[in-house]
Amino acid sequence: MNPNLIDTLTVKNDTKIVFLILDGVGGLPLPGGDKTELETANTPNLDRLAERSICGLLDPIGYGITPGSGPAHFSLFGYDPLKNNVGRGILSAAGIDFPMTERDLFIRFNFATADKNGRVIDRRAGRIDSETNERLCRKLQEGIRLDSYDVFFETVKEHRGLIVLRGDNMRDEIEETDPQKVGMPPIPPKALTPEAEKTAAVIAELTEKAKEVLSDEEKANMMLLRGYAKYRSFPGLNERFGLNPLAIANYPMYKGIARLLGMTVNQQTNTIEEEFDALRENYEKYDFFFLHVKPTDSRGEDGDFDAKVKVIEEVDSLLPAITELHPDVLVVTGDHSTPALLASHSWHPVPVLLSSDTCRPDSAKRFGEKECINGGLGRFPMVYLMGVALAHARKLTKFGA
Amino acid sequence: MNPNLIDTLTVKNDTKIVFLILDGVGGLPLPGGDKTELETANTPNLDRLAERSICGLLDPIGYGITPGSGPAHFSLFGYDPLKNNVGRGILSAAGIDFPMTERDLFIRFNFATADKNGRVIDRRAGRIDSETNERLCRKLQEGIRLDSYDVFFETVKEHRGLIVLRGDNMRDEIEETDPQKVGMPPIPPKALTPEAEKTAAVIAELTEKAKEVLSDEEKANMMLLRGYAKYRSFPGLNERFGLNPLAIANYPMYKGIARLLGMTVNQQTNTIEEEFDALRENYEKYDFFFLHVKPTDSRGEDGDFDAKVKVIEEVDSLLPAITELHPDVLVVTGDHSTPALLASHSWHPVPVLLSSDTCRPDSAKRFGEKECINGGLGRFPMVYLMGVALAHARKLTKFGA
Repeated sequence: MNPNLIDTLTVKNDTKIVFLILDGVGGLPLPGGDKTELETANTPNLDRLAERSICGLLDPIGYGITPGSGPAHFSLFGYDPLKNNVGRGILSAAGIDFPMTERDLFIRFNFATADKNGRVIDRRAGRIDSETNERLCRKLQEGIRLDSYDVFFETVKEHRGLIVLRGDNMRDEIEETDPQKVGMPPIPPKALTPEAEKTAAVIAELTEKAKEVLSDEEKANMMLLRGYAKYRSFPGLNERFGLNPLAIANYPMYKGIARLLGMTVNQQTNTIEEEFDALRENYEKYDFFFLHVKPTDSRGEDGDFDAKVKVIEEVDSLLPAITELHPDVLVVTGDHSTPALLASHSWHPVPVLLSSDTCRPDSAKRFGEKECINGGLGRFPMVYLMGVALAHARKLTKFGA
Repeated sequence: MNPNLIDTLTVKNDTKIVFLILDGVGGLPLPGGDKTELETANTPNLDRLAERSICGLLDPIGYGITPGSGPAHFSLFGYDPLKNNVGRGILSAAGIDFPMTERDLFIRFNFATADKNGRVIDRRAGRIDSETNERLCRKLQEGIRLDSYDVFFETVKEHRGLIVLRGDNMRDEIEETDPQKVGMPPIPPKALTPEAEKTAAVIAELTEKAKEVLSDEEKANMMLLRGYAKYRSFPGLNERFGLNPLAIANYPMYKGIARLLGMTVNQQTNTIEEEFDALRENYEKYDFFFLHVKPTDSRGEDGDFDAKVKVIEEVDSLLPAITELHPDVLVVTGDHSTPALLASHSWHPVPVLLSSDTCRPDSAKRFGEKECINGGLGRFPMVYLMGVALAHARKLTKFGA
């Protein structure tokens, strides 16, 4: 089934849907153990919810595929992650929550070191730290002006940054300037199609001016451009499903992705508790809520099983703040698995729980991976989750007569 | 998900994967019984493995589809069996483990009987036996020489054989010569495209010469050509996944398929025990092992439930030879089901067990079809098995940022 079939079936009503996303929640037991992080956690509220819910397992992309955060979140919201594999420049911009416009070209770059003849001697400028990067971006921002174009220099991390070039008719068919090895000069930013000539000329001017601005730097005296991506727009959750969605997230990446998909992004929160408070405070104003909990993933990435368990227990203790609102549909799941055992994202399917008045009972009595295997939702591609949620919220009409 | 997505994500490392394939292992209970062959067999080693593994069910081609051995094995190794439905000529050549080259044209033929006017009176030459076929092939091999072409006459079985024509610019757009009914002369091997004229002329010469060589035969005095297939190459497991694979099989068909998919084929073995020994002896030299056990299928085809049970028990008793090597991933499954009850291949999904250090616990406590229904792998298309195995062997990187 084409994941976009549901777009043709949506109807408006005043039911409310909450997606509580515990990033990287799926896990594995530690060696010798037989319980995952979620199964180890003491979660009386989630378990009570599981009894009245329907459970299952989701594959974010496909069998055996470990997803990045970008495609996994696209899948969560019903966007085919393979057909919408967004360029890294756009995800970088989303990752720093940069307010994108459709006139933007995103250029990923590294700071680098050149010798006096202009040959690259270090493609990462000695891996400068993020503070140095921020200082350099400010210096570039103050030192460079272009006729008819706006330009923004943004720190990503360490030697990596993002240029946003804003103007009319931007194109991205342009040669990358990173020569990929030392001892060579940068490659000129040549247009790869006739239509890209004008953009290429602006980029050539930009890199020349950057060289001047950086000429007194010892390490980072050059920029190497590593990939171009024009802004790409997506039909938002409103356009596709008629929803009025609010995103609540502490980390910029997820706010960026939510904004790409047409969600309103809540003002800055910093703790999980503040996120739950924000949902309560805004509950009347929206009909779809994406509440993103990051530390399940972070503690998984740290390889810290016990700390990940604690995050899950914290979420569980806050859960009544949502259940007391009686949303018509409450989904609790993750975007992917991040087992502490692997200290990284993984390919394992993600446990999911869907609570509503129209759930068929299944045998899952608590929220954990093993119970989810035989849950009533079964195992299915994550991209179809949104349709199932909309259906339970009675926001989808019949297909065919 | 396109099964070829994994090709873009492979990374090299030194983990090892073993595919232990019990051909036709999936079964059915006999009338009045409630256990399949696999469930009836006493398999302490497989059961112990199942406890620490993840189990499931595989569909070789699709719901309700009974596969031939060719497509089933393509599916096992991650090749879409519908997009890679290899011509029967190539499978016939694989079936006799013929050493194929890219200059080969494969022509399936029947020996037939013609009357004195050259009209076909028996399209199968009275179903001659395989020994007669072998004698006739030797006679043709000795009696026929072609300018600029090599030709090989190979017995397949009974009245069926395979001609391999080797030369430059071979084409397969040529009319089949079997008139499909008796009382008619053979159809001339006419070229169906201008490019095939030259090949068609050689084939006409070949059939004339064959008629002379066979003229003193009472039954098999003619050949009817029944299908042409040019050699087709496939990207091998090395090219697709960076693997260095070894195939261990006693039967020619499976060695042929393995060779088509770029595997090194081990020297001849004759018993299951010799196959297991070969795996141990070669364990350091390869990182992917396909060990093919044929008699599960053969006894199923015989309709001999008890004999199939015994083969499974023999494999179980040999299993420690593999588990003691501690492969990073060990998969035990079949290419399809061959229930003794049906005495043929069937459409039933195939039980699968995958053992590795990164398996999530499931509730399957022994290796059998019923336990596999609720196993943690769920039920999925066989073509995705290779990706799951590569993922558990940590040979796949993340999709997207």
